[in-house]
Amino acid sequence: MSVPETVLAAMRQTNDLFSDVVGRRDFDGLDRVYTRNARVLPPGAEMVEGRQQIKAFWRGAIVGLGLKSVKLTIVDAEAVGDRVFEIGRAELLVGSGDTVTVKYVVQWKQEDGHWKWHVDIWNMNQ
Amino acid sequence: MSVPETVLAAMRQTNDLFSDVVGRRDFDGLDRVYTRNARVLPPGAEMVEGRQQIKAFWRGAIVGLGLKSVKLTIVDAEAVGDRVFEIGRAELLVGSGDTVTVKYVVQWKQEDGHWKWHVDIWNMNQ
Repeated sequence: MSVPETVLAAMRQTNDLFSDVVGRRDFDGLDRVYTRNARVLPPGAEMVEGRQQIKAFWRGAIVGLGLKSVKLTIVDAEAVGDRVFEIGRAELLVGSGDTVTVKYVVQWKQEDGHWKWHVDIWNMNQ
Repeated sequence: MSVPETVLAAMRQTNDLFSDVVGRRDFDGLDRVYTRNARVLPPGAEMVEGRQQIKAFWRGAIVGLGLKSVKLTIVDAEAVGDRVFEIGRAELLVGSGDTVTVKYVVQWKQEDGHWKWHVDIWNMNQ
């Protein structure tokens, strides 16, 4: 099923929050991005479960990469039951000045009235 | 929701078909693994859409890597609407004799009475 425009708008708002986390190094902002039991499957590491572990992961990854900004684009989104399955694209500006293109799949779930990332996996195009 | 044992058994059967594709280089076997409109998001390449493109991708990847065998393990599966959302783990035996550990997310969908991979994304742990 297609995703109502109101939900897409809410998803874009969450994506913007993530960009803010990266831009401002405000890792507590991840509380509004990931569900409490979220799982992140990053390239080059084991799966990370739960919000505290996810915060620690992103702190290390964002600081480690010298990540300056992230732009997220929804490529496709489908409503399935009470979830949304998204295929997306990210442009990362890293410390070296290079741009890295990433594709991802996110399973979205509502928590406390907000649409959040419940499962998050990605990889690089190059 | 938890996934009924009958569905898990059907999923394992599909996973075994994929292992057969790798072991026997029988790429037409992928018809029974992927839905017609499936999408594959492989590391190091752009997204691949549709079964013919997916066959071409796997032919290149399996022959290119000299992939000898694949063992797939369902780590977690959740029924959402008419789909199943799986987090899994793969052990790949490649031409060099090395084993590569992969984690993946697959969205499963029923097509022609079979459970198949509808969205497939993975990355390496190392």
